[in-house]
Amino acid sequence: MSSDKKEPRSTIFDIDKEKDFPDWFGEICKVAELADIRYGVKGFTPFPPWSLMTMNNMFDILEEVLQRKDHLPMLFPTVIPESNLTKEAKHVEGFVPQVFWIEDTGDDEKLEERLALRPTSETAIYPMYSLWVRSWRDLPMKRYQRCSVFRSEIKSTRPFLRGREFLWIESHNVYASHDEVKAQVMEDLETTKEVVTDNFGIPVMVFRRTQWDKFPGGLNTYAADTLMPDGKVIQLPSTHDLGDNFARAFDITYLNENNETVYAWQTCYGPAISRIFGALISVHGDNKGLRLPFKIAPYQVVVIPIFRGDDADAVLKYCEDIQKTLKKAGLRVHIDKRDDTPGWKYNYWEMKGVPIRVEVGPRDLKGNKAVLFRRDTMDRETIDITDLKKKVLSLGTEIDKNLRRIAESRFEGLVVDADSFGAIEDALDKGKIARIPFCTTEMEGLSCDEEIKDRTGGEVRGTRIDVEEKPEGVCVACGKVATEIVYIARSY
Amino acid sequence: MSSDKKEPRSTIFDIDKEKDFPDWFGEICKVAELADIRYGVKGFTPFPPWSLMTMNNMFDILEEVLQRKDHLPMLFPTVIPESNLTKEAKHVEGFVPQVFWIEDTGDDEKLEERLALRPTSETAIYPMYSLWVRSWRDLPMKRYQRCSVFRSEIKSTRPFLRGREFLWIESHNVYASHDEVKAQVMEDLETTKEVVTDNFGIPVMVFRRTQWDKFPGGLNTYAADTLMPDGKVIQLPSTHDLGDNFARAFDITYLNENNETVYAWQTCYGPAISRIFGALISVHGDNKGLRLPFKIAPYQVVVIPIFRGDDADAVLKYCEDIQKTLKKAGLRVHIDKRDDTPGWKYNYWEMKGVPIRVEVGPRDLKGNKAVLFRRDTMDRETIDITDLKKKVLSLGTEIDKNLRRIAESRFEGLVVDADSFGAIEDALDKGKIARIPFCTTEMEGLSCDEEIKDRTGGEVRGTRIDVEEKPEGVCVACGKVATEIVYIARSY
Repeated sequence: MSSDKKEPRSTIFDIDKEKDFPDWFGEICKVAELADIRYGVKGFTPFPPWSLMTMNNMFDILEEVLQRKDHLPMLFPTVIPESNLTKEAKHVEGFVPQVFWIEDTGDDEKLEERLALRPTSETAIYPMYSLWVRSWRDLPMKRYQRCSVFRSEIKSTRPFLRGREFLWIESHNVYASHDEVKAQVMEDLETTKEVVTDNFGIPVMVFRRTQWDKFPGGLNTYAADTLMPDGKVIQLPSTHDLGDNFARAFDITYLNENNETVYAWQTCYGPAISRIFGALISVHGDNKGLRLPFKIAPYQVVVIPIFRGDDADAVLKYCEDIQKTLKKAGLRVHIDKRDDTPGWKYNYWEMKGVPIRVEVGPRDLKGNKAVLFRRDTMDRETIDITDLKKKVLSLGTEIDKNLRRIAESRFEGLVVDADSFGAIEDALDKGKIARIPFCTTEMEGLSCDEEIKDRTGGEVRGTRIDVEEKPEGVCVACGKVATEIVYIARSY
Repeated sequence: MSSDKKEPRSTIFDIDKEKDFPDWFGEICKVAELADIRYGVKGFTPFPPWSLMTMNNMFDILEEVLQRKDHLPMLFPTVIPESNLTKEAKHVEGFVPQVFWIEDTGDDEKLEERLALRPTSETAIYPMYSLWVRSWRDLPMKRYQRCSVFRSEIKSTRPFLRGREFLWIESHNVYASHDEVKAQVMEDLETTKEVVTDNFGIPVMVFRRTQWDKFPGGLNTYAADTLMPDGKVIQLPSTHDLGDNFARAFDITYLNENNETVYAWQTCYGPAISRIFGALISVHGDNKGLRLPFKIAPYQVVVIPIFRGDDADAVLKYCEDIQKTLKKAGLRVHIDKRDDTPGWKYNYWEMKGVPIRVEVGPRDLKGNKAVLFRRDTMDRETIDITDLKKKVLSLGTEIDKNLRRIAESRFEGLVVDADSFGAIEDALDKGKIARIPFCTTEMEGLSCDEEIKDRTGGEVRGTRIDVEEKPEGVCVACGKVATEIVYIARSY
């Protein structure tokens, strides 16, 4: 029995996020109890309630949007037989190096065939789609699953941002034509914006990735990047036009209305909620800790009773009435009844990022008042208790708008035109993204990307698809005539 | 490209559930698209939308109850390092034979330490609890996770009932005293009854298991059994009094109010939703297919438009208004707009178990009427459209009550007293449960249980805890003075 392991309870958080982001990130994961890196297996971290409850709220919003757009949930096994995993040649190349393999069970019994922990589920799902898709009547088939995936090759791990097990939704869709596939890709990008930007307050830039940076086995990859406090970009959801490549590898055919058997067309889309959560806490947090959006905070409101001795019962009863009123309005409300000082509790819940705090003392009780505190601006306001519900709801909306506005302001003036390695490096050193004329995002452009990476530390993120852009001049790297405008950033 | 794999679309379901339960179960899993056994890895089955959506609703109800009782969600990694898994000696014995082991990654790189796919998560969670539990202020710590678990030793597999990967919630709780642990065990049994019986309509009998049938490493196991159509019982949730065994193995201590470091006390509780789903479809289904409770059906109401030519637009519009009205009332409603006959659709949704069907033709439209059909009794009723919401809501409640009543009626006269092997066998052959005087549920009683199993095919399920029972006479097997009343059943 040892007690030296016991650490003191968390106190005030105070780290400069912009100046020392890695330290800020590591510390907030620890003191806000978001992830515990002491589990003992590299890249695998337990998620305590605070992070899991937030991610569950994020999942719920994403699932609601997907279901509104006619995607149905399903769930496939965690393991994939090796013979399926290796059916699509480029996919094998991309994913086999990342696989955790299961070969033995129990007391060293060998399995008939090796099983992979899914790194992604195309090769689990598509053999079944081959059986499930029969005629044009079955199409489109729009489905998704919410699960963990496993990738061993991730060497340098960080909670949420780069884990060997992470949480995501993968949507797998089958269509009768390539046009419908292209429309689904656009729908996915709209979903990304609705969920990630409108609901979570994280602005994104959307790119078509280069041919050397696309999903292994697909035709084209489209992805949303956001900006982290250290000036690097991070990829949030990506969606893939798979063409009919996987349909050919897994024999996904259907009888069309002319009674002909033809290959189907496919997309897949993979929003990694745990990674988006990592970006979310980084983008919205400040030097005092987390600032969670009202929409997804596990507790949207925390109520702090303030009393000495005699007033205790009356104040607690008042707090419970407040909780009841707000719960009736559908809000998630917590009363902190712990045996600690109000000041300690204020610091604690500020660090945890709860959007709204209600402070209630004997004087508030007598005057039918309460104090509302908003975490985003740290402003306080005394209100009449009869206005409570209205005030909390409007403040919640305002907080989310404000967090989004702050995040979006970092995107202003972010893109800088560059036409030389020096200008690119200069932009990146200032935490900017460089916009350059480039030879081509087809495979022949790879060596130019590599040269840019060597000389500037940045990489080609792709071409914009929401803005039409015409290049002038020559490729910064090889000097050939530019055919595209691409964006260069340092990245996760 | 092959099309011989294509099977015809499902049609009318008609299998005698009582007479041929295994066939009924296998076929309904197939035609209602609940599980696909063609995945190619023994005991691992994809869950298509219809089963997953139902199970998600079941999870939501269970989570709501757990959270109301102050359990918070968290999530641990899927893998457990071998050195943790093998820390509690009896637990090792019980679970190591069931483990899927990961030893290699990528292109045959060896891991530093073997990793187990979690068969259950005590040995993942408790090393962290050892760090998280610090003082009496941290207790009780009531937490749970919703996840998959993996057990390889299950030889004869069946979708939902016996899978090598199954879906569950595992709740892990830490207390300052053994009394609180015992109270938690009782709370878990209440939760089981609230969720499984009150919400899902499945009656259960609750037993304390014998010492040879308890959770490996725990002090006592309490479990709920229900009855399947073939007269066998199946274990639904079980909850375990772990005493301080795991606290000692994993060094889970806390500073008490006297500043002494002492061991904590623990419980765990594991409701396997996929297994409960398997029992649910078996208990409530009939010869025409599924009968899903209104509370958890993915679609609570399906609307079938009936029209020829000219009426189509008006009828569809009327259906959409019906959907809108019911959705506003918080219900899950689907309009079947497919290009099939109404009769085909009736059969289809009856087989799928949708509790309420609304049929709408041109005549209903003109008369401001609709036809309501309830799946449990197969009764039809014409209603005024203005009564729609009220009628559907009350019918939903009635259907759930009726399904529960039917299931409970099978429990009447189920238990038969027996005092010899012959009488036990006779009872079991009639699909009954035998109630017998027994020597002891301590380890010395094991050989008597084995003899009963050999001679009757039944096994000791344990002693009742919700009813106090005093034995008279002698143990049926060994003839020693009976100290307990136990129940014998054939089981899954």
